[in-house]
Amino acid sequence: MRRIPTYDILSEEGLALIEANADRLLEEVGVDVRGDPVALELFREAGAQVQGERVRFPAGLCRSIIAASAPEQFRQHARNPERSVEIGGNNVVFAPAYGAPFVRGLDVERRYATLEDFNRFVMLSQALPQMHHSGGTICEPTDIPVSKRHLDMIYGHLRYSDKPYMGAVTSGERAQDSIAMTQIAFGREFVANNYCMVSLININSPLVLDATMLDALRVYAAHGQACLFTPFMIGGASGPVSPAAMLAQTLAEAMPGIALTQLVRPGAPVIFGLLVSGLNMRSGVPTRFDETWKCLLAGGQLARRLGVPYRCGGMTSTSKTPHVHAGMEGATYATYSMLAGVNFLLHATGTIEGGLCLSYEKSVLDCHYLGALGRMMDGIDLDQDEFGLEALAEAGPGGNFLATKHTLARYREAFYESPLFDSKPFEQRRDEGSPDAAQRANTELRSLLADYEPPPIDASVDAALQDFMAERKAMLPDSFA
Amino acid sequence: MRRIPTYDILSEEGLALIEANADRLLEEVGVDVRGDPVALELFREAGAQVQGERVRFPAGLCRSIIAASAPEQFRQHARNPERSVEIGGNNVVFAPAYGAPFVRGLDVERRYATLEDFNRFVMLSQALPQMHHSGGTICEPTDIPVSKRHLDMIYGHLRYSDKPYMGAVTSGERAQDSIAMTQIAFGREFVANNYCMVSLININSPLVLDATMLDALRVYAAHGQACLFTPFMIGGASGPVSPAAMLAQTLAEAMPGIALTQLVRPGAPVIFGLLVSGLNMRSGVPTRFDETWKCLLAGGQLARRLGVPYRCGGMTSTSKTPHVHAGMEGATYATYSMLAGVNFLLHATGTIEGGLCLSYEKSVLDCHYLGALGRMMDGIDLDQDEFGLEALAEAGPGGNFLATKHTLARYREAFYESPLFDSKPFEQRRDEGSPDAAQRANTELRSLLADYEPPPIDASVDAALQDFMAERKAMLPDSFA
Repeated sequence: MRRIPTYDILSEEGLALIEANADRLLEEVGVDVRGDPVALELFREAGAQVQGERVRFPAGLCRSIIAASAPEQFRQHARNPERSVEIGGNNVVFAPAYGAPFVRGLDVERRYATLEDFNRFVMLSQALPQMHHSGGTICEPTDIPVSKRHLDMIYGHLRYSDKPYMGAVTSGERAQDSIAMTQIAFGREFVANNYCMVSLININSPLVLDATMLDALRVYAAHGQACLFTPFMIGGASGPVSPAAMLAQTLAEAMPGIALTQLVRPGAPVIFGLLVSGLNMRSGVPTRFDETWKCLLAGGQLARRLGVPYRCGGMTSTSKTPHVHAGMEGATYATYSMLAGVNFLLHATGTIEGGLCLSYEKSVLDCHYLGALGRMMDGIDLDQDEFGLEALAEAGPGGNFLATKHTLARYREAFYESPLFDSKPFEQRRDEGSPDAAQRANTELRSLLADYEPPPIDASVDAALQDFMAERKAMLPDSFA
Repeated sequence: MRRIPTYDILSEEGLALIEANADRLLEEVGVDVRGDPVALELFREAGAQVQGERVRFPAGLCRSIIAASAPEQFRQHARNPERSVEIGGNNVVFAPAYGAPFVRGLDVERRYATLEDFNRFVMLSQALPQMHHSGGTICEPTDIPVSKRHLDMIYGHLRYSDKPYMGAVTSGERAQDSIAMTQIAFGREFVANNYCMVSLININSPLVLDATMLDALRVYAAHGQACLFTPFMIGGASGPVSPAAMLAQTLAEAMPGIALTQLVRPGAPVIFGLLVSGLNMRSGVPTRFDETWKCLLAGGQLARRLGVPYRCGGMTSTSKTPHVHAGMEGATYATYSMLAGVNFLLHATGTIEGGLCLSYEKSVLDCHYLGALGRMMDGIDLDQDEFGLEALAEAGPGGNFLATKHTLARYREAFYESPLFDSKPFEQRRDEGSPDAAQRANTELRSLLADYEPPPIDASVDAALQDFMAERKAMLPDSFA
């Protein structure tokens, strides 16, 4: 929960200008809705101009559809009710990385991720108290066929965690499987009346909504489940290179998708996501530095004006290891995300190589940073007792406060302490063999996994989930593409 | 120059509450002014109640003295006029670390700093374009007697840099020497009419102004030179442990010092500095995490209400090496400092071990981060051309923007690029031997020092500076304490 104000980088006039440009883009250029006649028809009925697969929207149309029914805040249920989360308003949910094909760690040479890695990361998010969410495709279980791995992932989230999770989005059929397994775990009626999944719909920038994605969207929206809409903008490649353009285009791409959920099922929760990258013109690699920081912040303002929760962040880095560059980049990104008023901080932990790889140690290190960020969000307590005037009178000029009543009553909780953030004197660290932060994180990682205990699950539910998986796997082809 | 808004963590009511508590502290407890009858007399004449060395101030007295004459902004001149800096308003000056007794680097085992290190750091700040200032006692030249090292440091700033610098503050006599050398370099009349030094006066928290510090303050103020006032608060040791108390006490300690400069010389520039630390109760080491971030931000608001420039920051860390923890801590601190509206970012680069040690590689790495921070401060350009609507119409849905006119006109300057922030693909880095960020910084460091050329100096000025040093050194004892 964020109790401090958001940081508004743009004025109301600036925001209106971005919105006007997004509207012009939707009206004059429009978006392509590819291979999906149902969506085209829904848009046409709502008042859009449809020519072939190109859809153009009169200014303000998408916004008014969204304003009519999309909720500002909703509760995503976890199978353990104590782990349910509020998404929207001043609430901030930390979710792990998403979609990394590779993993790496001090004990793991960089290689393709497996289901074992995936489940281990689920266990880590379960074990780390800073994490509110189990995420979705944290890393890709590449040892399982693409056609079947969604089943193992949903099972992993349900078996090794009791925190909320995300559904599969790579096809409507896989979305349907995700819903079926969620119905087994939560009960069919509960799922019909509550939000039990948030699923990530990426938009193919520039300006394309494709059938695969829309198919998954319609399945989730039809079941009243939440979606997270994120245009994936790379400035200079999938859109113009300027922050103003990246913001207007992101908004122009997200609004039709968000509006479509409302056309399918008015009131279905939907999150506005922003994910803009720069492009390093020498290496061709997307980067997330200076200009994208600005977009993070303005994106939060646009989301609030749109009246839906905001996703951005998190601690991503193009670094190859959890070293100083990763620390700088991740902390800056998380800080601006929080100040932007993020509600759903995806990629909150672990990402290196700009999303291609997931670092075991960084997953733990980032979590410890999030602990401090969480305290930051509490703001400054200005209760008169906090000023400690009696302690100041007691100690007086030149005095010491270590033993004042005021200090003794507060010192245990006064500051954030983490064994990974190194506050020991140099000599003490040297005598310990000078372990760096990654090595200390590795020690914590091993102990978290060694001490991990799966949350309880009803044996019949577990059996039903396994039966469902077996049945579906028997029907599905072994496709790795 | 910051072109984006400050971030205001507290409401006006919250700030007024902190000011009211600072006033109560000054009125009820007061400060000790130790060993300095001249300062006591100045305070008494101004309306304070003096009992022995204890000085109590009626509510609002210090603030009204400051408001009457302390400037909101001033220009610190460098000996190269192109390097002069504006301090105050929306200007942001980056200055290097201050006061580290130790140095460390990939080529330097951790050891006491020497004059050679000091001069090398001066050369680095001169060579790195991100740095606006040469600083003061960047590291302690421990191979030179304490009684004489101020001469070598001022000479180093003047000889190896043409950026602005800070004077000695460890005694009135050393402040006088700093002024004499500055008069040789700038001309006596110029120094009489312009601000050529900003010098750091730390206050001994809690609530003590001592003679050494006041002596230096009076020398600088009498010559119309600028001072930077920083109470050094360690919550739980030199003051209560709560952020509210740390803020009220910092304000209560700084205001009498700032007011004193105005009593000595109305209109002499003075900067309000905030430096609060937490205390790790296990190790006894000061830390600068969560709660101190809040203080950074609120401190900027208090400075603006006081009407004087603000010092806080910078990229300090308790880490022992420039690793991930140092990256997280430094980037967060610098980011909040900028958002706080910092005018003088001291310790902008290089600090590890909470200030005890200066890292060669981190000095370069931090500078590269400051380059991105500088771009962040430029804000978002909302000129209509930036929206790239023609490019979007040209590329259309599914198109590519690499070759649009809009991209081609902007791509060179579109994003911040630094060789230290690793945007190369994994395979390319692996083939280079996987150098980490510190190793890449080491390469840059060596090349900066190899290519370094001292700025031109008039030979007669150089000779006069050397003569002055020799003369003073012959008079001063060889004291190492």
